[in-house]
Amino acid sequence: MTDQDVKTNLSASQQVIHWLQNFDQALQTKNIEKAVDCFEAQGYWRDLVSFTWNIKTLEGQDEIKQMLLHTLKNIEPSDWQLEEEAIDNQGVIEAWITFNTKVAHGRGHLRLRSGKAWTLLTTMVELKDFPEKRKNLRPKGAEHGANPNRLTWLEKRQLEEANLGYSEQPYCLIIGGGQGGIGLGARLRQLDVPTIIIDKMAKPGDTWRNRYKSLSLHDPVWYDHMPYIPFPENWPVFTPKDKIGDWLEMYTKVMELNYWGSTECISAAFDEQLQQWNVEVNRSGERLVLHPKQLILATGMSGLPQIPKIPGMESFAGEQHHSSQHPGGEAYKGKKCVVLGGNNSAHDICAALWENGADVTMIQRSSTHIIKSDTLMDVVLGGLYSEEAVEKGITTYKADLTFASIPFKVMPQFHEPVYRQVAKLDADFYKKLTDAGFLLDFGEDHTGLFMKYLRRGSGYYIDVGASELVAQGKIKLKSAVTIDHIKSNSVVLTDGTELDADLIVYATGFGSMNGWAAKIISQEVADKVGKCWGMGSDTAKDPGPWEGELRNMWKPTQQTALWFHGGNLHQSRHYSQYLSLQIKARMEGIDTPVYDLQESHHLQ
Amino acid sequence: MTDQDVKTNLSASQQVIHWLQNFDQALQTKNIEKAVDCFEAQGYWRDLVSFTWNIKTLEGQDEIKQMLLHTLKNIEPSDWQLEEEAIDNQGVIEAWITFNTKVAHGRGHLRLRSGKAWTLLTTMVELKDFPEKRKNLRPKGAEHGANPNRLTWLEKRQLEEANLGYSEQPYCLIIGGGQGGIGLGARLRQLDVPTIIIDKMAKPGDTWRNRYKSLSLHDPVWYDHMPYIPFPENWPVFTPKDKIGDWLEMYTKVMELNYWGSTECISAAFDEQLQQWNVEVNRSGERLVLHPKQLILATGMSGLPQIPKIPGMESFAGEQHHSSQHPGGEAYKGKKCVVLGGNNSAHDICAALWENGADVTMIQRSSTHIIKSDTLMDVVLGGLYSEEAVEKGITTYKADLTFASIPFKVMPQFHEPVYRQVAKLDADFYKKLTDAGFLLDFGEDHTGLFMKYLRRGSGYYIDVGASELVAQGKIKLKSAVTIDHIKSNSVVLTDGTELDADLIVYATGFGSMNGWAAKIISQEVADKVGKCWGMGSDTAKDPGPWEGELRNMWKPTQQTALWFHGGNLHQSRHYSQYLSLQIKARMEGIDTPVYDLQESHHLQ
Repeated sequence: MTDQDVKTNLSASQQVIHWLQNFDQALQTKNIEKAVDCFEAQGYWRDLVSFTWNIKTLEGQDEIKQMLLHTLKNIEPSDWQLEEEAIDNQGVIEAWITFNTKVAHGRGHLRLRSGKAWTLLTTMVELKDFPEKRKNLRPKGAEHGANPNRLTWLEKRQLEEANLGYSEQPYCLIIGGGQGGIGLGARLRQLDVPTIIIDKMAKPGDTWRNRYKSLSLHDPVWYDHMPYIPFPENWPVFTPKDKIGDWLEMYTKVMELNYWGSTECISAAFDEQLQQWNVEVNRSGERLVLHPKQLILATGMSGLPQIPKIPGMESFAGEQHHSSQHPGGEAYKGKKCVVLGGNNSAHDICAALWENGADVTMIQRSSTHIIKSDTLMDVVLGGLYSEEAVEKGITTYKADLTFASIPFKVMPQFHEPVYRQVAKLDADFYKKLTDAGFLLDFGEDHTGLFMKYLRRGSGYYIDVGASELVAQGKIKLKSAVTIDHIKSNSVVLTDGTELDADLIVYATGFGSMNGWAAKIISQEVADKVGKCWGMGSDTAKDPGPWEGELRNMWKPTQQTALWFHGGNLHQSRHYSQYLSLQIKARMEGIDTPVYDLQESHHLQ
Repeated sequence: MTDQDVKTNLSASQQVIHWLQNFDQALQTKNIEKAVDCFEAQGYWRDLVSFTWNIKTLEGQDEIKQMLLHTLKNIEPSDWQLEEEAIDNQGVIEAWITFNTKVAHGRGHLRLRSGKAWTLLTTMVELKDFPEKRKNLRPKGAEHGANPNRLTWLEKRQLEEANLGYSEQPYCLIIGGGQGGIGLGARLRQLDVPTIIIDKMAKPGDTWRNRYKSLSLHDPVWYDHMPYIPFPENWPVFTPKDKIGDWLEMYTKVMELNYWGSTECISAAFDEQLQQWNVEVNRSGERLVLHPKQLILATGMSGLPQIPKIPGMESFAGEQHHSSQHPGGEAYKGKKCVVLGGNNSAHDICAALWENGADVTMIQRSSTHIIKSDTLMDVVLGGLYSEEAVEKGITTYKADLTFASIPFKVMPQFHEPVYRQVAKLDADFYKKLTDAGFLLDFGEDHTGLFMKYLRRGSGYYIDVGASELVAQGKIKLKSAVTIDHIKSNSVVLTDGTELDADLIVYATGFGSMNGWAAKIISQEVADKVGKCWGMGSDTAKDPGPWEGELRNMWKPTQQTALWFHGGNLHQSRHYSQYLSLQIKARMEGIDTPVYDLQESHHLQ
C-alpha cells in the first residue's frame, strides 16, 4: 500500500464509521425515516436472518422502510462497528461491519457511494445465549476428577445412537445425507440440536461413489470446503467422486453425526395439533415412525429425475435410463449410444462413453452455456476462491460473505462484463464449437454460468474436456432437434434422422425440489409450498414475479416446520449457517417473527 | 504496541539484519573464524538436518567451528533473511529467519544478546527440487481432457494397494501404526516416497481403542495436532481415546496411506550388499517378505513392556498383567487390586479401578513428579499451545519451532523458575499429597515434567484427578516400598506388609526402543545402535555422556537405513518433518553427509 492508499482508506473508514453512527442512532431512536435515508433511493439491504428471521433482500427505500416498520421494535439492533479498515474501490467504499441484535451477534458488509448505502448485508452469526462450543468454549473432553458413575465418550455416543429415534425423539430430521445434509447436520450438532440424518444409501459418501466413474467436482477445492473442517492444503483442485465420498464418510464420523444409512423415508405428515411431524422410515428393514419438530429436505437442489414421455420408448430393446442412473462408460464399448440433453451430465456422460470406445451421439435440444473450467477459475471465481485469494487473506468465510453481499438484482451487472471478457478470451474455442453446430449461449442477458445456475439450475456445462470432443466430431452432435419417437433399436429425431441405438441416456434434468415434498408428504403440501429455486427473473425456466432471493431455500416456507436445503458445496456451507440458526432459535423458544413470508406463485 | 515498542523492535530488526549480513558474508567467503565470531563464546547452534544431515546441537564456538569446517563446503548456505519484525525481549533479541542451502529451503530462529548469537536454530523446510504438492502445487485431481486410457483416482489407488509390497517394493517400511507412524507416513506420502505402514492391530486407531476405558490424551488439543489436518475448532481439549482412534482412522484414509492392519513383523535383516532390508511379515495370515530401502521403527517412544521378576509371581492365583495390557476397571468391582508403580499409567489405572468400586492400593517405589493438568496448561504450555496463543497468531508450526529453538543444555534454566512457580501455586495440593505419604519430586534440579520426559520418559503423572483420591486415601498408598514376594492370594511388601490381592498390575514402565530392534532384527544390531531417548544429562535413568539431543531419535543411527520415530504428538508431528526429508533425500540420491554420527554408549 502506498501512503496515498493508506490515506484514502483511512478516510474511507472514517466515512463508514460516520455512516454507522448515523444509522445506529437512527435505529436506536426508532427514527425509521432517518435510517432509510442512510440508503440510496435504490439502495439494497440483504438480510440473512438477523432482522427478518428470513432470507430477504429489500430493494429501494420503500421496502427497507416497510421492513424496519415491522421488525425494528423486536430486533433492537445496536453496536454497529467497523471491523477492519474500509477500502475505497473506485468510488465505492467497501467495509466489513459487526452489530448486535437483542438475541444475536451479527456481521455484515456495506458499500457506500457518496455517503449513502448502495448495498448493506446483515447476517446472523451466533445466538448470544447459545454460542457454539468452539475455540475457548470447546468441550473439555476427558472429565478430570474421579467419578464412579463416569461414562466415557464412547459410551455416551453409543447411548445416544441407541436412544435417538427410539426412546428420544430428534428435534430435527434431515432427509438426504449428501454434502448438504451432512454439513447442515454438523452445524446443528454444534448447536446441540438433536438431529438424525437419513439416506437411502448405506454409507455417507455413497451418493457420490455410486455415480458414474469419471465424475469429479466441477468446482475447485477453494469453493468446496465443508463447515468446520476445511480440506487440507494437499487436496486436489477437482476432487474425484470417490475421494469426496471418503471425505464425507470421515466427516460424518468425526463430527459425530447421527447418520442413518440404508434408511428410506416412506411418508411424512405434519400433525397440526402437536406441531410435529410423523415420519415413517424404513431403516434397513425396520419400520419406525419418527416425530421431529422440524423436517428438512436436503435431497439436493435438484428434485426428482425428469424423463420426457416419448412415443415408442416402452418398445425400446436396448437399455435406457436417466443420467442420474448412468453407471459410467465401461459397459458400452462398441455400443451405439444416444444421449438426450446438452448440459453438464450429458457432456460428462458422452465424454466417458467416448473414452470407453462407444459410438456416442449427443442430442442437443436447445442452446447451452459453456465455460472452460480453467477460465471459470481464472476469470470468475479466482478473485474469491483460489490459492491467490487465500494468500491475500480472503478466508472462505469472507469470500462467502462477499459473494452474499451482492444483491441478486445487481448481480447481472457484475457478471455481464466478466462474461464478455470470457467470450473474448476463449473466442477460438467458442468458434470451433459453433462451427461444429453446437448451439451456444451466454444466458439471455449474457450473464453466464452463475446467473443460469441461480435462475434455473441448468443450461450450462463447465468444460473439462468434452467440448473438444464435440468440436472434433468425436462426440457426434445433433442439435436443434429432439427425439420424435423411439423404435426397438433406434431413435428417430424430429428432423427425420434415424440413429441406431443400444443405449439411450436421458440427461433431461430434474424437477423442482418440491417434487420431493409431493412424493414424501403430499401433493397438497408440495403445491402450498410451490416451486423451489429460481428468483423470478422472468428468464427461461425462471418465471416471475421477481423474488430477489431463491424460492423456498434455507428459509421458512408456507408449510410450518418444513425446510429445503441444498445447492452446491459453497451454498450448502454458507446457508446451512442461517438455516441451523433458525432451527436452533425455534428449539430454544426464541421469538422468530418471520418478515414477509414468501408466497407461492408456481406449482413447480 | 506503543510507539516506543515499535522503535525498539525496529532497532531489534536492524540488529538482526546486520547480524545476518555479517554471518552470510562470513559463510559466503568461507571465513569460518568470522562466522564463529558471530556467536557468543558459549553460544548454541541447533541444526535440524539443514547443515548436518543430522539432529545436532553445537555448544560453544569450538563445536560450531568444527561443524562448519566439515559441512560448509557442501552445504553452501545463502540468502539469510529476517522473516518478520524481530522483538526485543528484555535484552534478548528474538527473530524468525529464512535461508537457503544448495539443496534446500530453511527456516530458523535467532536469539541475539549484545549483538552476538546466544542461540541459533536452523531447520530444513523443503528440498528445492522436491517441493511438497500443496497449495499452488496441489494435484489437479480430475484430469481434464479426454483420454481413452484414463484411470480414475479410485482405480489408481486400488492398483497401488494391490501392487505395493507385491509387484512393487516400498522404499520405506514403517513398523508401528500409531500416531507416530501415521503422521510420518503422511509426510512421506506428500513427498512421494512409496511407503507401507504395518501394525499388528486391525485398524488405524486401534492402538488407542484397545487401551483401558478411561484413557484420554493428557496433553491439550493445541499440542496434539497431526500434520496437514489440524483438529477442528470444536475438538475437545483432552481427546478421549476412542475419539482419537476415529480421527487416526479417518486421517489414514483421507491422506491415502498404505496401511496394513493385522500385520506383524516377524523378522528384519539388512542386506549389506543390496543395501536393503529383508523384512518378513505376517499379513492377516499371509507370509511375505518386503524389501524396503529404509526401515523405521515407530513403535512408540517406549520399548517393550518391563515386568520385574518377583519371587512367587508364578504362583499367584489371581490375575496379573503389565499396565499396557490392562483392560480397564469394569471387571474388578469389589476386587482387591495392587498396582505396582506411581507414574502416569499407575495413577490412571488406580483411579479407574476406584471408580469401578475396586479396593485399590498403589505401591509407589520411588518419588514421582506430579503436576496438575490445569496448571500444566496455564503455566507451562499455555504460552505456545493454547487458544490464547492461537489468537496471538502463534501457529502450531511456530510454537514447535519456538520450542525447538531452545537448546537442551539451556532448557533446564527455562523450566526451573516455571516449576518454582508451579510449586508455589499448587502448594496446598502438594502438601495434601505428601501428608498422605506420597513421595513427591520436581526432578533432581527442580525442572519438572518436560525435562523428566526428555531425560527418561518416565517419573511423572499429569494429574487429572487421581491425586485427590490418593490424598483422600481412596486410592490406598504404600510408598517407599516395593513388592518383596508374591503368594497365591497376596503380595508381601519389603516392609513386611501383606496385602490380599485378586489383581496385580505392573505399571513398571517400558524398556528402551532398541529393545524392538533386538526383537525384530537382532541383539547385535540393538547393541550397535544402543539406547534410545535421553540426552545424557547424568540424572536418574539418563546416564552420560552428554549428547545434547535425544539419542537415536529421528536421525541416522549406527545401523545404516534404520531409524527410530516416536514421542508424544507434538514431537511426532514436528520431528517427522525432518525424518521424512532425510528419507526423501536418500531416495532421490541427494548427497547427505552426516556430520558427527552419534556413538552408542549404553546398550539400553
